[in-house]
Amino acid sequence: MPALDERLRTLVDTAPPGTRLPSTRALVAEHSVSPLTVQSVIRRLAAQGLVETRPGSGNFTIGRVRHHRADFTWQTTSLGQMRTAGGTAASALMAIPPGTIALHNGYPAPDLLPERLVRSALGRVTRTSAATTRAGIYGDADLRDWFAAEVASATLPTANAPTREEVVITPGGQSALTSIFRALADPGDAIVMESPTYWGAIAAAHQTGLRIVPVARQATAPDPAELDAALQSSGAKLIYAQPHFANPTGALWSPDQSEELMRVVRDRRAFLIEDDWAHDFALDAPIHTLVSDDLNGHVIYVRSLTKSVSPAFRVAGVIARGPALARIRSARSVDDLFVSGLLQAAALDVVSDPAWRTHVRRMQQQLRVRRDQLASAVIEHLGPESLTQLPQGGLNLWVRLPDGTDVLRLSAESRSAGVAFAPGPDWFPTEPNGAYIRLTYSGPEPQRYPEALATIARLL
Amino acid sequence: MPALDERLRTLVDTAPPGTRLPSTRALVAEHSVSPLTVQSVIRRLAAQGLVETRPGSGNFTIGRVRHHRADFTWQTTSLGQMRTAGGTAASALMAIPPGTIALHNGYPAPDLLPERLVRSALGRVTRTSAATTRAGIYGDADLRDWFAAEVASATLPTANAPTREEVVITPGGQSALTSIFRALADPGDAIVMESPTYWGAIAAAHQTGLRIVPVARQATAPDPAELDAALQSSGAKLIYAQPHFANPTGALWSPDQSEELMRVVRDRRAFLIEDDWAHDFALDAPIHTLVSDDLNGHVIYVRSLTKSVSPAFRVAGVIARGPALARIRSARSVDDLFVSGLLQAAALDVVSDPAWRTHVRRMQQQLRVRRDQLASAVIEHLGPESLTQLPQGGLNLWVRLPDGTDVLRLSAESRSAGVAFAPGPDWFPTEPNGAYIRLTYSGPEPQRYPEALATIARLL
Repeated sequence: MPALDERLRTLVDTAPPGTRLPSTRALVAEHSVSPLTVQSVIRRLAAQGLVETRPGSGNFTIGRVRHHRADFTWQTTSLGQMRTAGGTAASALMAIPPGTIALHNGYPAPDLLPERLVRSALGRVTRTSAATTRAGIYGDADLRDWFAAEVASATLPTANAPTREEVVITPGGQSALTSIFRALADPGDAIVMESPTYWGAIAAAHQTGLRIVPVARQATAPDPAELDAALQSSGAKLIYAQPHFANPTGALWSPDQSEELMRVVRDRRAFLIEDDWAHDFALDAPIHTLVSDDLNGHVIYVRSLTKSVSPAFRVAGVIARGPALARIRSARSVDDLFVSGLLQAAALDVVSDPAWRTHVRRMQQQLRVRRDQLASAVIEHLGPESLTQLPQGGLNLWVRLPDGTDVLRLSAESRSAGVAFAPGPDWFPTEPNGAYIRLTYSGPEPQRYPEALATIARLL
Repeated sequence: MPALDERLRTLVDTAPPGTRLPSTRALVAEHSVSPLTVQSVIRRLAAQGLVETRPGSGNFTIGRVRHHRADFTWQTTSLGQMRTAGGTAASALMAIPPGTIALHNGYPAPDLLPERLVRSALGRVTRTSAATTRAGIYGDADLRDWFAAEVASATLPTANAPTREEVVITPGGQSALTSIFRALADPGDAIVMESPTYWGAIAAAHQTGLRIVPVARQATAPDPAELDAALQSSGAKLIYAQPHFANPTGALWSPDQSEELMRVVRDRRAFLIEDDWAHDFALDAPIHTLVSDDLNGHVIYVRSLTKSVSPAFRVAGVIARGPALARIRSARSVDDLFVSGLLQAAALDVVSDPAWRTHVRRMQQQLRVRRDQLASAVIEHLGPESLTQLPQGGLNLWVRLPDGTDVLRLSAESRSAGVAFAPGPDWFPTEPNGAYIRLTYSGPEPQRYPEALATIARLL
């Protein structure tokens, strides 16, 4: 079917208008598909205005006639200057040719996902009113209860466990970050970030027109004194952080570090955005969310289900309290009105199924094995000094190459040689402090890790 | 099941921690449901940390203990001043008690939607890889082809029919507007809008920090000389418009008006954002999209499938060209990375089904009948002078009440009396120029229109 599709599309794109398509019978024989399949492909091309059916004589290409050569020069002046940098998707999202070993993509391969649960949840939800009705502005009540309970369960019996009213559903974690940044800061304001940190947060801050003030992440966490100095000198009221198995380093704030850093946050009357992206990928150490211990609304918590449930489920929960919650709710209600109730209901169905916990345990076991396999390959081919740490959670190894390595060039050459990974500079809000690359162990084909690392070593 | 759910939730919320829940057997008898249903409800409450199961002795409430009274006063200073107005969802999205006659909600009732097509599309797509893989950043290639072809088909054979590369998929029309505003204008820039116009566009412009320059909509379209003057005096490069069956008035730009207004747009080197929200709701007059005749990229086109396919399908297409396209693509890739591929595939499946056209024709026939019924009720109870026009498309009647009517108060009183509608001020970017209300004829229970209008007339 893809071959047939491609064959006809190429014909439509390249043949002169009025060219007759091969007969259904010929296409059936050539591609070993049913006549119904052929007709459905041709019907779609016809619906797209690319093919015309003349009853009795067959199907003909219409062609895309271009009479006029468009002139967009006026736009350059009208649009004026660009906002600072940012705004381009990182190499972590790049499309790769088939056959490439994918160490770049932060979304787990299908065999790590709860496929059966996802499909049966969608099947059930499709039959309910969620398929044809509008969801509430801030999200489905039961799903918001679930996000709140997940945080509350970490510390039960908890003082101030968040309630449903303090949860806002967004179409994914990235969307949560952009809405939070816009809701709580104005263009020109400063925001403090760990360095290195998640490229999507860097891009979102650039696009919102924020000034990023970097604070270096030491072995596991930023230095509280440096955080304090950065907040004081910049006047920033927002901090973006990934305390648990940070992307890309995999590092984890210890309980003592968390307590010290949160004391600084409180003393400076600031907000810490806790991006709990790896909640379901805690492999060897548990996650204790900062929001669970937050008494007075200093923590804005973000957790997405997209990575652990399915990339087709663009659903995340934000927890915030006080006036900050009001601003975020207000921003969300304008940003995209509401999130698909179908996806919300299906996501809740998956995570409240008793089999979900079993799946998570099995997936974590698979990830541990892959992490160890990838780490072994890194050590064997690049030397033990290249592995910055063996992370206790998350999906990535953060690998340091010899100083002076041109990692952008290495990444391009490696991709041509069939191995995709993400070059380090995407994860630094300012200049990189070394030649780093990020290797992800949640992709397909872990048996090819040695081959991939051999290729990278050879290109070095 | 809802009754059972509610019963247990109330118990959990109000009973002291440690209260024992009624036995499964008692709940089965009381609510006439199966033991499995009872257990699934209790399991969900347990997963949410609200109920604890003690083997051998039953289920007990845990309760939400609140030890600490949170102090958010620090946030007020830290957050600082608010951005101008906007940012609150309009009354068109308000939740209403059951039994209310809903004339406020712009999303068609389920009986106007292609329910069978939606469910079978979801069923098919659930079994494909779209359920577990990540979609491309700018959207599914086939769906982008479809949006491009829809515009191209209006003028085939067309010069410069848009191509797939010029289409970007967004999670709904509102998200498209916010991304476009942010991509093409900076905070403080001016944007010209018709007045009255769609409340969501007004809110999005406020939130982006744009200055809204209103141009009054005359009987059907703005005056080209007034548009020219507004562009010149404000320096605005962006115009937001709904040329076809505008929300709320239902008015349609004539071909001559479109040509004159587009000449002004070109001469002022401006962009016109064509919000084709009512494309599938063209009842008595066809829509000829402005983008179809746009040679040099002055039109940014937006069309959403959420209203006509299903509110659960948050999928829209944006068409833009030249450097403006590059800026919008860049903004989109940061705003939320990608749109659920499952929803995109399902939406394409619905609209390329041969039964889709049949459905649209039948839905339009139903809408014509409802429009006429609602218009009759308006004329009978409020007088013929109250109906500003009988729209040839869209979903709304724009009704003018006697000068001096307090429409906000009327709307609140009417809602208490069981009739929900949207007060006019939401649709004006500045002061309303009369006492207007918007009545939508796509809700459920058209047989109750006379009752609804009698209630409104009585409250007047």
